[in-house]
Amino acid sequence: MNAPLLNDTFLKACLRQATDHTPIWLMRQAGRYLPEYCATRAKAGSFMGLATNVGFATEVTLQPLERYALDAAILFSDILTVPDAMGLGLSFAQGEGPRFERNIRTEQDVQGLAVPDMNRLKYVFDAVTSIRRALKGRVPLIGFSGSPWTLACYMVEGGGSEDYRAVKSLMYARPDLMQRILDINADAVALYLNEQIRAGAQAVMVFDSWGGVMADGLFQRFSLASVARVLSQLIRTHEGVTIPRIVFTKGGGQWLGDMAALDCDALGVDWTVNLGKARALVGGAVGGPGKALQGNFDPMALFAPPEQVAAEAIRVLEDFGAPHTDASTTGPTQIFNLGHGINQFTPPEHVSALVDTVHAHSRAMRKR
Amino acid sequence: MNAPLLNDTFLKACLRQATDHTPIWLMRQAGRYLPEYCATRAKAGSFMGLATNVGFATEVTLQPLERYALDAAILFSDILTVPDAMGLGLSFAQGEGPRFERNIRTEQDVQGLAVPDMNRLKYVFDAVTSIRRALKGRVPLIGFSGSPWTLACYMVEGGGSEDYRAVKSLMYARPDLMQRILDINADAVALYLNEQIRAGAQAVMVFDSWGGVMADGLFQRFSLASVARVLSQLIRTHEGVTIPRIVFTKGGGQWLGDMAALDCDALGVDWTVNLGKARALVGGAVGGPGKALQGNFDPMALFAPPEQVAAEAIRVLEDFGAPHTDASTTGPTQIFNLGHGINQFTPPEHVSALVDTVHAHSRAMRKR
Repeated sequence: MNAPLLNDTFLKACLRQATDHTPIWLMRQAGRYLPEYCATRAKAGSFMGLATNVGFATEVTLQPLERYALDAAILFSDILTVPDAMGLGLSFAQGEGPRFERNIRTEQDVQGLAVPDMNRLKYVFDAVTSIRRALKGRVPLIGFSGSPWTLACYMVEGGGSEDYRAVKSLMYARPDLMQRILDINADAVALYLNEQIRAGAQAVMVFDSWGGVMADGLFQRFSLASVARVLSQLIRTHEGVTIPRIVFTKGGGQWLGDMAALDCDALGVDWTVNLGKARALVGGAVGGPGKALQGNFDPMALFAPPEQVAAEAIRVLEDFGAPHTDASTTGPTQIFNLGHGINQFTPPEHVSALVDTVHAHSRAMRKR
Repeated sequence: MNAPLLNDTFLKACLRQATDHTPIWLMRQAGRYLPEYCATRAKAGSFMGLATNVGFATEVTLQPLERYALDAAILFSDILTVPDAMGLGLSFAQGEGPRFERNIRTEQDVQGLAVPDMNRLKYVFDAVTSIRRALKGRVPLIGFSGSPWTLACYMVEGGGSEDYRAVKSLMYARPDLMQRILDINADAVALYLNEQIRAGAQAVMVFDSWGGVMADGLFQRFSLASVARVLSQLIRTHEGVTIPRIVFTKGGGQWLGDMAALDCDALGVDWTVNLGKARALVGGAVGGPGKALQGNFDPMALFAPPEQVAAEAIRVLEDFGAPHTDASTTGPTQIFNLGHGINQFTPPEHVSALVDTVHAHSRAMRKR
């Protein structure tokens, strides 16, 4: 039996309900910019050693909550656990991005792919349960996965890429094979997120980190459609409580109108997006349907002195505009976040300025 | 005295005049994907050895025209010649991106910056004159420069960057210093492009390659405003002929509406942009004002077999839609191009499929 939730601001904002402040959490909030995270990672030996150890994963998930008044926790894990469970062999060399031991390039490779046994991801679900318990209801816990297309990028490239040459070559030359990969990925991601929900995740987020590299038309056909396939298979409630679903396409600002049709509650946007225009396009009217918007502070603005961090946070809040305050109905809401994961060199004290400013200024906006 | 122009399709399309086919040229069309380019570069010893030698620069500029029925030539040079002339020391290590010997980080560094003496860029103007003569009027010659912001990115970072941490830190912490850098860059770029025009360039293009990494609001304030400062200083005609101006912000699709206010003739767009929507937004009506649109084929689609290259080229042409055919007035026009420079591993024979398809299909579209 989990403790009752003490701060439901994030969940309410996801569902476009009025809150007394704008909730904030930060992508990659448990990460290398925190010395305490680095200390735990050193004990764990490697990133995957950290992610697969329930105790360590719980410890690092809670670390940023001790420093900052964040309104949500996010499972400490990686977006690429699903292809790892498919047998591709995920690893992270010190100071480098993810690498797969084997990649998917040929028709035979694709034919060998299958939705993995969820038992291979038990370490994730155990971490979710452990973190949820350790949170004691302080804030809700977000579960997540990479999007089918983003997983495909890494699976085909075998790691990060500057130009996505291998995955795009496969997509342009053999769209049938790309579709097969995406279908398998979508079904696997849906099973995976449902298991996270059953283990205790109170919201789920799909990271379409590389959707923005696609051509218009192909984004809709491949990435957006496969995210829709994930969403169509997700459970909507758990133990009688609605589980909000967030979709974030980095670089997807031009496609917000298309993304509005997704069966999810919130859309993440990066810093290139004008929040006022995004709100007008997809945020919905008071009492009407719409999407909550999550974002969109430039993580690099955290390198400026705290006074400028605060000024930039205020600019982002004001860009979104007047908060929805009618508790009797739904309306446009913002979940404050970065537009990308926090940078490893970020000065931790600048993050305090961001979180505190968002809380204080968003409260003040509600009193205007 | 230069030879009369035999193919003015590109210049007419820039000025939104009707043409009998959609003109095509390719960013970085003289480049490493061509074996003959690699042979000349080997003779030159280095990229800068190639760019600063009038004979070599002329030779490689004309190479792609021998292979493909391209409708324009572009000066062989680099977007970073201006900061090199400011004394920052540009070099290219084999297989790597550009590097500056010294970078601009402090207030003192910024105070030391000045618009360079154009004599230091004489090798560029000499190359323009030589190429123009060698072209013998086959196609028009495009001159170019990096945008003030894009130059600033490289000047502050000292080279390429994944996250633009240094340049964004400076921008967020000291917007006054960033403004100073951009003002100097804008004035230098304007002088530089005017000299290229006087030397024989028949159109000029500003490459805002890194405008798309900025936050909404800051793009307009810093990158767009400094491009406007360049444009305001450019000569509009040379020897009685209008010199079209093209501005390309990679990743700037969301800001096309803002860019429509620029005093230029054409806007470049990358593959994430829906050409039909872009045409509706900025392309203008027949007889009315508007911008020509340049783009937006995904360079990675050139890795698919020629039949798929052709199919994708047709998709891009059809996305833009019905050609403007009324020779008595202006109207929406497309200049076919990639959405980014051609990749060095592109199979040269696939480029033939692209160029030939664009010519054949765009002619067929005009006969519907």
